[in-house]
Amino acid sequence: MTTEFILNFDEKPTLKNPVLIEGLPGIGQVGKIAAEYLKDELGATRFATLLSYTFPPQVLVKKDGTIELMKNEFYYLKGEQDLIILTGNTQAATNDGQYRLCQKILDVMEELGCNKIYTLGGFGVGKNIDNPVVYGAVNKDSLISGLESIDVILERSGVGHIIGASGLLLGLSSLRGMDGLCLMGETSGFYVDPKSAKAVLTVLARHLGIELSLDNLEKKAEEVEKMTQEAAEIEKKILEEMGATAKSDVLPDKDQMRYIG
Amino acid sequence: MTTEFILNFDEKPTLKNPVLIEGLPGIGQVGKIAAEYLKDELGATRFATLLSYTFPPQVLVKKDGTIELMKNEFYYLKGEQDLIILTGNTQAATNDGQYRLCQKILDVMEELGCNKIYTLGGFGVGKNIDNPVVYGAVNKDSLISGLESIDVILERSGVGHIIGASGLLLGLSSLRGMDGLCLMGETSGFYVDPKSAKAVLTVLARHLGIELSLDNLEKKAEEVEKMTQEAAEIEKKILEEMGATAKSDVLPDKDQMRYIG
Amino acid sequence: MTTEFILNFDEKPTLKNPVLIEGLPGIGQVGKIAAEYLKDELGATRFATLLSYTFPPQVLVKKDGTIELMKNEFYYLKGEQDLIILTGNTQAATNDGQYRLCQKILDVMEELGCNKIYTLGGFGVGKNIDNPVVYGAVNKDSLISGLESIDVILERSGVGHIIGASGLLLGLSSLRGMDGLCLMGETSGFYVDPKSAKAVLTVLARHLGIELSLDNLEKKAEEVEKMTQEAAEIEKKILEEMGATAKSDVLPDKDQMRYIG
Amino acid sequence: MTTEFILNFDEKPTLKNPVLIEGLPGIGQVGKIAAEYLKDELGATRFATLLSYTFPPQVLVKKDGTIELMKNEFYYLKGEQDLIILTGNTQAATNDGQYRLCQKILDVMEELGCNKIYTLGGFGVGKNIDNPVVYGAVNKDSLISGLESIDVILERSGVGHIIGASGLLLGLSSLRGMDGLCLMGETSGFYVDPKSAKAVLTVLARHLGIELSLDNLEKKAEEVEKMTQEAAEIEKKILEEMGATAKSDVLPDKDQMRYIG
Repeated sequence: MTTEFILNFDEKPTLKNPVLIEGLPGIGQVGKIAAEYLKDELGATRFATLLSYTFPPQVLVKKDGTIELMKNEFYYLKGEQDLIILTGNTQAATNDGQYRLCQKILDVMEELGCNKIYTLGGFGVGKNIDNPVVYGAVNKDSLISGLESIDVILERSGVGHIIGASGLLLGLSSLRGMDGLCLMGETSGFYVDPKSAKAVLTVLARHLGIELSLDNLEKKAEEVEKMTQEAAEIEKKILEEMGATAKSDVLPDKDQMRYIG
Repeated sequence: MTTEFILNFDEKPTLKNPVLIEGLPGIGQVGKIAAEYLKDELGATRFATLLSYTFPPQVLVKKDGTIELMKNEFYYLKGEQDLIILTGNTQAATNDGQYRLCQKILDVMEELGCNKIYTLGGFGVGKNIDNPVVYGAVNKDSLISGLESIDVILERSGVGHIIGASGLLLGLSSLRGMDGLCLMGETSGFYVDPKSAKAVLTVLARHLGIELSLDNLEKKAEEVEKMTQEAAEIEKKILEEMGATAKSDVLPDKDQMRYIG
Repeated sequence: MTTEFILNFDEKPTLKNPVLIEGLPGIGQVGKIAAEYLKDELGATRFATLLSYTFPPQVLVKKDGTIELMKNEFYYLKGEQDLIILTGNTQAATNDGQYRLCQKILDVMEELGCNKIYTLGGFGVGKNIDNPVVYGAVNKDSLISGLESIDVILERSGVGHIIGASGLLLGLSSLRGMDGLCLMGETSGFYVDPKSAKAVLTVLARHLGIELSLDNLEKKAEEVEKMTQEAAEIEKKILEEMGATAKSDVLPDKDQMRYIG
Repeated sequence: MTTEFILNFDEKPTLKNPVLIEGLPGIGQVGKIAAEYLKDELGATRFATLLSYTFPPQVLVKKDGTIELMKNEFYYLKGEQDLIILTGNTQAATNDGQYRLCQKILDVMEELGCNKIYTLGGFGVGKNIDNPVVYGAVNKDSLISGLESIDVILERSGVGHIIGASGLLLGLSSLRGMDGLCLMGETSGFYVDPKSAKAVLTVLARHLGIELSLDNLEKKAEEVEKMTQEAAEIEKKILEEMGATAKSDVLPDKDQMRYIG
């Protein structure tokens, strides 16, 4: 009970060269919407849950009053191409925690024989976008080939960063010899963005060579949006008011407030 | 002397299926007022003190000039239903510290045979409330039954979070098979709120099936308010002035200033 | 070279029931001025230097271009009452680091047979003060007696906090059975305050029963002020400008900027 | 894969009394430009890469869509005076991480027989400078001699700080008996500053007694500037907008945003 990671397996699936598809909370919730939709639409089975002290110190309360811990969850799906889908309600909340968490995730992947990962996310452009394109990033030169033919943009005008799990998984997996691709849907960054997630999933399905209906994507986006937006207005009001009256210890550490939402 | 937690027992009580009631500093000080009142009104006996490097690096100075370390304290009360009450002058000040602290508290609970916990807190709504209701959250579906009959609201329009010990204890206790309920009194979040604490205690007493006079609650709230508010005005003034003149190392690390109050 | 604390002894003095006097950087630099003056005026001998990874990640550059690491230093003086004086150019920069540092300091004190500590600091009141009084705080009731006769104010209208080493040393030393007194000179908190340090030293000398000329105190305050103020103006300007142009990685981590000055 | 530092050697060069020249990201990117230019212009060979959990949790995406982890890199050059050049795309992102990282770097230096280090950086003055001078700082009195004759300014009006690797390497190397000099080019701190880097390299070449053409320095500065500036405008816009709408968990932890650029 006292280790930084608590990994519980529902079952240990036997998979054939599975590829990992990661989509965790992030800009525009693009990656999370995409991964959640994928596992629901394809009917993937959860096989493991990862809890961690690197997560924000809080629980999530669902609409019926039951709670769940902050967590990442692993799903699998057998098929022509076996898949592992990683999603969850949070990313690690500290710098070094992000590194350790991603290494832990990759340990699980190695154990299951995975040697290729896709990470999904948003590419913030700071303005509204009608027809979002998809940017790609790869951890090996050999992965570039074939991406432009399915409309993934690789070249950019300057150097950028990918922050958090989508970036770190790509980088750290390369140390283990794994292939890694990141697909990022263009998004304003101002709100939850299903259109961007749709663009990402369209490209992903083509790259994996799988059929994927995207008809129900809007509904999934609505669910994700509700989970991240409602509490925020009230919390913001309280924090502002509290700042104004200097009652600085009425709420716990500011660090713990970041993920309210 | 060099471990992160220093747990000192005054005595090790032998208890029969005790339930834990936690109320630590938090929004509107609702949980702390409620827990402090409960242990005083019922005449509970302190049996352990928990110090931790996860707490803010400071001491509290009482009105007579004597100091006390930041700490959490455990009280017990024998009766038809044995109780353990946890209160204190702080929560952990870091993300991972919150996780480790809550696990440490649950270790103590397991040792004492406790398998049910109540966590008390405020539910911030960002506006003044005349007649605060009490929201509930549970870590098992089976705990829902019976809560609405005593006016605890479980259903809400969206998903929310419970931040800090009240949330984490609920979540982490579920990993040990413990029952966990959180009772949150509606509160503005703008000031120390005895009315909200009263609403919480009313519901708690009904759920525990105990008699509890709430006549002295206002007085307890006044005490708690004094402990959190007086120094804040001066500190705020100093911090503003220091910001203005850029003497950034006259005071220690900003992280250490958060709990001034 | 890889431990969090690096403690180097110049010599290990044999002392008879020494008392520790601590004065590290803090509000108004009151404690630091007092401790620096005391060790210079009494001609105390340095016997140990403590370096720590808990300190800000920087070095100090002196006027001749030579540098020194952030450090705490221990001095001793033999006499009717053997003294240990602790001062330095920094406090720990993280919450848990403050706890571990203070425990380390107390380990050294135990080894040298010390069982009484004085911690010196400022008491911020947010306005200019012509004749600063001295507030006291003690870690045992038995230490109250005698303090008021030398004009130390113990009673206050409400509860407060002592943040950082002056507070934590008081609290943590009580766990080892040591006597602990904190003397805090009233100060605005807006600038380096020798008048407040003078008030603290006057009281300290009376309590220790030692002779102490305070004639050169103003000069010491000037030195301390120069060390904390000059670089601040330029750094502030740069930080503002950089904020305005969003070049967020031109300087290292914001955490590392706090102690610039 | 689970240690805080991952040090990979391309080869282990045998060097004769090598001196280390460090230039990592920092104010005005002065040190980084200088070190990058030096290793390219002199044709130094990379021999080791250092990854660390103390770095920001992100990867860098190059213009062709390939990524690289945040890293520090060691180069060597054999000659009359063997050189080791340390540069990279980041510094450690936490206080104690900076200490541990610098110790790790010095461990490598000791292993290679290095006993003298130069650290390069900017000296922020908060205003534009036409003809930047070079300030020096040394970790031993004996290193002062000879510096002024090559126009390095050692004396200053007050005490200052050197923050991050350039400072800490100087300080911590002194604990190992190594000689350490820091050369800081005057810079506004407002933008990437090749003129300041040129001033530093001019002095460095004279001190090392090596020939060094500085004709291509402007081009190197342009590269560095592109790597740090382009993404910043968009990120800033997104962060502001997100602040305004309180979607606080759309992006990961604020700590992880600091190095966006």
